[in-house]
Amino acid sequence: MPLVSERGQNAPLSPFRKLAPLAEKAKAAGKKVYHLNIGQPDIPTPPSALEAVRRSDKTILEYSPAEGYLSYRQKLTAYFRKFEVETHPDDIIVTTGASEALLLAFLACLNPGDEVIAPEPFYANYNGFALMAGIHIRPITCNIEDGFDLPPVEAIEAAVGPRTRGVLITNPNNPTGSFYSKESLEALADVVKRHDLFLFADEVYREFCFDGQEFYSVLRLQSIRDHVLVVDSISKRFSACGARVGAIIAFNPAILEAINRFAKLRLSPPGFGQILAEAALEMDDAYLDEVKEEYDRRRKTVFNRLRKMPGVISYLPGGAFYCFTRLPIDDAEIFCRWLLESFEYQGATLMISPGQGFYASPGLGQQEVRLAFVLNTADLEKAMDCLENALATYPGRKEAEIKAAKAGATAL
Amino acid sequence: MPLVSERGQNAPLSPFRKLAPLAEKAKAAGKKVYHLNIGQPDIPTPPSALEAVRRSDKTILEYSPAEGYLSYRQKLTAYFRKFEVETHPDDIIVTTGASEALLLAFLACLNPGDEVIAPEPFYANYNGFALMAGIHIRPITCNIEDGFDLPPVEAIEAAVGPRTRGVLITNPNNPTGSFYSKESLEALADVVKRHDLFLFADEVYREFCFDGQEFYSVLRLQSIRDHVLVVDSISKRFSACGARVGAIIAFNPAILEAINRFAKLRLSPPGFGQILAEAALEMDDAYLDEVKEEYDRRRKTVFNRLRKMPGVISYLPGGAFYCFTRLPIDDAEIFCRWLLESFEYQGATLMISPGQGFYASPGLGQQEVRLAFVLNTADLEKAMDCLENALATYPGRKEAEIKAAKAGATAL
Repeated sequence: MPLVSERGQNAPLSPFRKLAPLAEKAKAAGKKVYHLNIGQPDIPTPPSALEAVRRSDKTILEYSPAEGYLSYRQKLTAYFRKFEVETHPDDIIVTTGASEALLLAFLACLNPGDEVIAPEPFYANYNGFALMAGIHIRPITCNIEDGFDLPPVEAIEAAVGPRTRGVLITNPNNPTGSFYSKESLEALADVVKRHDLFLFADEVYREFCFDGQEFYSVLRLQSIRDHVLVVDSISKRFSACGARVGAIIAFNPAILEAINRFAKLRLSPPGFGQILAEAALEMDDAYLDEVKEEYDRRRKTVFNRLRKMPGVISYLPGGAFYCFTRLPIDDAEIFCRWLLESFEYQGATLMISPGQGFYASPGLGQQEVRLAFVLNTADLEKAMDCLENALATYPGRKEAEIKAAKAGATAL
Repeated sequence: MPLVSERGQNAPLSPFRKLAPLAEKAKAAGKKVYHLNIGQPDIPTPPSALEAVRRSDKTILEYSPAEGYLSYRQKLTAYFRKFEVETHPDDIIVTTGASEALLLAFLACLNPGDEVIAPEPFYANYNGFALMAGIHIRPITCNIEDGFDLPPVEAIEAAVGPRTRGVLITNPNNPTGSFYSKESLEALADVVKRHDLFLFADEVYREFCFDGQEFYSVLRLQSIRDHVLVVDSISKRFSACGARVGAIIAFNPAILEAINRFAKLRLSPPGFGQILAEAALEMDDAYLDEVKEEYDRRRKTVFNRLRKMPGVISYLPGGAFYCFTRLPIDDAEIFCRWLLESFEYQGATLMISPGQGFYASPGLGQQEVRLAFVLNTADLEKAMDCLENALATYPGRKEAEIKAAKAGATAL
């Protein structure tokens, strides 16, 4: 019997894969489980976008162009103007979600054995795309004390090695919800330029920036125009994860040419998804404004609860819909399992993602968890009731840390 | 400015990429262009399947499970029973087309530098997926004289080297339309077993087998049950290329586990595509029977015309909707270009794929072209009129070969 490949054996498992069957078991036993573990929004997909698919008069669902329908790419150029980014449809290659976008970006820009620097914690699946492309991610560790802000450029520069070919950032960030300022990005651009690196920027949460902060795309960094590749997706902003529509945006013709070659190999991104995506861009701002307000309420709800929990260290995330919180516990994986297997408060519990899977450096994230704000505020309050009670009764709680920590969450 | 990767520069271009702008130019100049170059069927997608998408009452287009909707996988198990293949839904992982299926299969089973043996000519994009996975395809050359049948097992066995880990076949075949018999496949299974290889089988054209031949899936080869991976897609059988729905079928739990890890990384196959695919499997046989009859008429139309063209060597393909024909010409790439740039018959010309791109061995395919039967018989007749006239007037035609060749096409 032939053996599967090393990469097949080593491909990382999802941080909550082991927890999923436990959640099913808890539900089967009649427990209510609040899912704060996944990035699947509960917000309705724009009805007019779904309606566009229903009204489609296609009789042959043909391949779209490999780079995506021109009409959709044209609408995307108009969309990016909202963020003061000027693009041409030829700068955009439509992909099957942000996942494919990042994989193609890695393949086009990096040779096997090359390295990209990424602030950690980072979206766990980046490790998998790196494995698929045969490249390495070199982490630089962020700190919860400043809400996991982009590390100082000195730290990034110190990580540049002989095989370093790029930097990978997520802004606003998953899993931390941190938001990178124009100034930090400009400083990063200097490093990118100085070391002739690629800058891969996952900007899928750009619509969700709070407290009046203005999102600043790396596509605006004129000095590194030929270095940047932006990864996009409609999954989160239009709550359309199943459409599988993303994009890569770049200005460097050689990058676009290389990505186009890979895009042509897989023939076409999904047809109906593009119809939906195009219709979503025809809406006025009301939908996104409302969604953003909803996420804003949710992050405040979670923040206000976390700050009152003894020994919890957290912060008010500036973007996206996640928070990466430190708990007074022995081990996040054990705690998350315990929540599903052994804990119950008023007939309910919660499922959250243990922090370890979001770090590349071994040993980190053991007391941290990611919370995704994909429930309405009423349910979030109940989930926070569960968390508060769980922390009070968890056998592995760390009394010393609870005493040491004073306040809890802080508004940065 | 950072340089793109070697693989980004080396990713193979489509065999007709250079021709596409010439076709556009010809059309702009008022010439009718018969497209026999692409695998995009002109057959309508099943109306009931499109209707299922229109009737969908989803309000949140969420991620499907990474392995695909269970309801669709259940219907696929029923579908495979038609081919005497017993599967369980857990043996099936739904993918974003056959393209992703093959890439994930390579990643899961092969390490960088490993080698798979494939009969050539083969689907040109296999080279690209191999490049993406960092593996090599070792070609064994088939012969037009026997309609590009599977080479004898001795030839396959002779190609097994120290890094050989698999065999890749396409049955029925793109680009040749050849059909592999149960006996050839059983002989192949012995080699696969003896050398402990994987057998990757692209069976997306299984519905289109002619002359009463019964399709025999490698999933029926009991002796190599743990070695086989079948690649599937609804693109061709339901004329739904833009749905981007394929699948991998395997029985070996280690293979399924490895593929599942990669599938989870990219989160989910397209949602609407799966709804369409599921509805297509609810139809009775009438749609596919009719499509098959149509392709049967088309292959006979082309065959009957090719056999009368002096110096043309061809055959009646047993499956799929392609024919790989040898023409009395100097160079297929030059000829295909000339067809678009300099030739016209009754205001029309045709676009076909030069043979070279379907070979991995250098120098082969220079006089061969792939014809795709994606036009109705009336248009195919007109396209054959063009081809006949083109061969009579092409400046690079080979008089000696026209005289040497007697009949032309043969029914095998």
